[in-house]
Amino acid sequence: MEYDAVIVGAGLFGLSTAYHIKELRPEDKVLLLERLSGPGQGNTAKSAAMFRSFFYSRTNLALADSSIEFYKHVQEDLGFDLRIKWIGYLWLLSSGEYRSLKPVLSEMSRRGLEYRIYDREYLEKTLGLRAEVSADEEARLMGLVDVDYGLLVPKAGCIDVDALVKFYENEARKRGVEIKYGVEVLDLLIEPKEPLGLPGEPFIWQEARVAGVKTSAGVFRAKKTILAAGAWMPLLLDKVGIECHIKSKKRQIFSVKADKEELKKLMHVEGFNRENLLPFLILPRPKIWVKAVPEEGSFWMCYSDDFPREFKVEDEPQPEGEFYEYGIYQVVVKYLPQFKGCRPHAAWAGLYAYCTLDGQPVIFEEHDVMVVGGGSGSGVMKADAVGRIAAALYAGEEYAKLYGGEKFKVSRLGLRERKVEPEKLVI
Amino acid sequence: MEYDAVIVGAGLFGLSTAYHIKELRPEDKVLLLERLSGPGQGNTAKSAAMFRSFFYSRTNLALADSSIEFYKHVQEDLGFDLRIKWIGYLWLLSSGEYRSLKPVLSEMSRRGLEYRIYDREYLEKTLGLRAEVSADEEARLMGLVDVDYGLLVPKAGCIDVDALVKFYENEARKRGVEIKYGVEVLDLLIEPKEPLGLPGEPFIWQEARVAGVKTSAGVFRAKKTILAAGAWMPLLLDKVGIECHIKSKKRQIFSVKADKEELKKLMHVEGFNRENLLPFLILPRPKIWVKAVPEEGSFWMCYSDDFPREFKVEDEPQPEGEFYEYGIYQVVVKYLPQFKGCRPHAAWAGLYAYCTLDGQPVIFEEHDVMVVGGGSGSGVMKADAVGRIAAALYAGEEYAKLYGGEKFKVSRLGLRERKVEPEKLVI
Repeated sequence: MEYDAVIVGAGLFGLSTAYHIKELRPEDKVLLLERLSGPGQGNTAKSAAMFRSFFYSRTNLALADSSIEFYKHVQEDLGFDLRIKWIGYLWLLSSGEYRSLKPVLSEMSRRGLEYRIYDREYLEKTLGLRAEVSADEEARLMGLVDVDYGLLVPKAGCIDVDALVKFYENEARKRGVEIKYGVEVLDLLIEPKEPLGLPGEPFIWQEARVAGVKTSAGVFRAKKTILAAGAWMPLLLDKVGIECHIKSKKRQIFSVKADKEELKKLMHVEGFNRENLLPFLILPRPKIWVKAVPEEGSFWMCYSDDFPREFKVEDEPQPEGEFYEYGIYQVVVKYLPQFKGCRPHAAWAGLYAYCTLDGQPVIFEEHDVMVVGGGSGSGVMKADAVGRIAAALYAGEEYAKLYGGEKFKVSRLGLRERKVEPEKLVI
Repeated sequence: MEYDAVIVGAGLFGLSTAYHIKELRPEDKVLLLERLSGPGQGNTAKSAAMFRSFFYSRTNLALADSSIEFYKHVQEDLGFDLRIKWIGYLWLLSSGEYRSLKPVLSEMSRRGLEYRIYDREYLEKTLGLRAEVSADEEARLMGLVDVDYGLLVPKAGCIDVDALVKFYENEARKRGVEIKYGVEVLDLLIEPKEPLGLPGEPFIWQEARVAGVKTSAGVFRAKKTILAAGAWMPLLLDKVGIECHIKSKKRQIFSVKADKEELKKLMHVEGFNRENLLPFLILPRPKIWVKAVPEEGSFWMCYSDDFPREFKVEDEPQPEGEFYEYGIYQVVVKYLPQFKGCRPHAAWAGLYAYCTLDGQPVIFEEHDVMVVGGGSGSGVMKADAVGRIAAALYAGEEYAKLYGGEKFKVSRLGLRERKVEPEKLVI
């Protein structure tokens, strides 16, 4: 028994791919395998659940904007509540950084992307921000910079990732995708294209292909095997010598309670958005973010450290107390003294699956195995577009139609003819 | 005590880099570390020891040609015997492959690169070749193709890699490079750029750098740490989250004795080169090569299999009997029946360190660590140029001067502004 497609991984990329394959090829037999006991329980569940439709790179923008528009459509037109809140992103910037971003921002403004600039005084008043950290000797020693401007992007916010996962899972099932949870893929099944039935095949004089997967529940054969296994993908692909250009780093989120009056005030700050909630706040350097989570009465904090954070794939990455205590906390409290004394009541860690080529998703096929991955920390906000492009590649189409109608050349996210516009808004 | 440069790995890349750094910066204190007990004993020693100055890509050609000219200079002008033999490369081609290569070859000919074409009859007569394998049903089932042409490249041959290693080691020592064998690098030493002397440094608000290496013989501090550790490089770099785009595959060489009369005749075939030796012979598909090693009275055979050969770093890769028996042997004997019944009397395996971006070397610096690697199977023939480019990067120069005078922009082999001309002669 052979499937048309076996998809490995029921994170957002795998689910979206399964759904869109059935949209394009309703008759095809599609199997989705997941080693965990339900959908979206891997790194999808550990996401910050934020999105923004504000990028300079047309690649970034096309993927994020069309996905966000689709999620909006799901919520507003289809009536499936994804708990989207348009709270915006607010970057705190030094005057130096603002100056160097200005030409890029002007160009983005000409293209119709909206943003607002706030000055220091406004930020100090509304956020209780200590903008002039350089007045503090310790902060100076730490290399922290003064905040002179705030850049607010309104087409951005947060989403309930569990609900989004549920949406795709339901829709995929409705369209006939068979889903098996608790099935771990151990190896890719390698066979000659034209088997001769000899033991030891394939030999070097035969052309080989991926013919399915070997799992904890037996072998599943497929015309196309589609890997959407995020951080775990290189482990499967290294064993057959295919390079996917994905490596993983641990990302930690620390949650602190908004139990003081001044923290509640910060959470429900007025004037930045209609929700009267603190926008997703990003400090100047190091770029720590702070997210208000009113339903929990807490703030989440995170910093995506690069060098010397190791590349490592691990099943149960653990948050590190010192990372908060000597790192995040020390910086946050200099800018936002309201957080003085706050210690995390909860913390967790996941893995970002980075595409080490350019931080954009990779979607390609070799030897009948397709790779769909490399969300690089913006997987949630790009998942719908990624699923459509993967489905188009599967269906042998040159272009994918993104939500809203934009045609996207499939090979742009492939390896051989990869064409990703660099992101100039590095912020 | 701090060195200006600590170089990790005394393979050809590390030796050449050490030598050329001292040429550019004679006063700098340079330390070369090697975990094995002597130079060139890792994968350098397992090389096929072949070179060719025949590439379409100007990147490939500049690196290989200038290195080969330097080796020739070492042998002919400096009198250091590298046992270079200009035996040439001889590709056996089907008419289909020849036709598709013709435009590329014509262009190369216009650029002054020399080659000769032989027809089937000549090859049959001189080599005892069975050109029309399609007459054999088994060969047809194996997908083997008939040979219609031979492409001979005269500016190509073999070299004594041990002698080349010895040359660089001597010259590096003479110029004052300190060399320590039997010292294993365990980790990169990470420190803040501006240490505050706090336990747990560097913190996320500090800029970090590689400040040297931790080894089995203690810590060695360096202004620049230079990794030339081939296949082992990613193990060190993954631990600090730097991507070097290098992955490794096992490569096996099998040696069979030329003990039959017809094999001796093949080894000493006349008319292809002045040595009256079999040129380095490459079969059409799979592209197995056969090398005459007259000093051993044997032929070496190898096939660089791609998919599904795993990416793996291992200390003692082992040759696989079946790889010869059911793979290489089956193909070779169809084209060259002289080898009938030949079994290997010796075999060994090494690792090719592939650059998964484009198969060209990578030479870049980040956070005070330099990466020099990714020979991708042509490391020996490019080692001199690679050493010069690495030394130029170390010295902060924009261009390296290759042997013969060509200026080569250092950033062309880096990551950010990488500019490698694709190789159209895929053969």
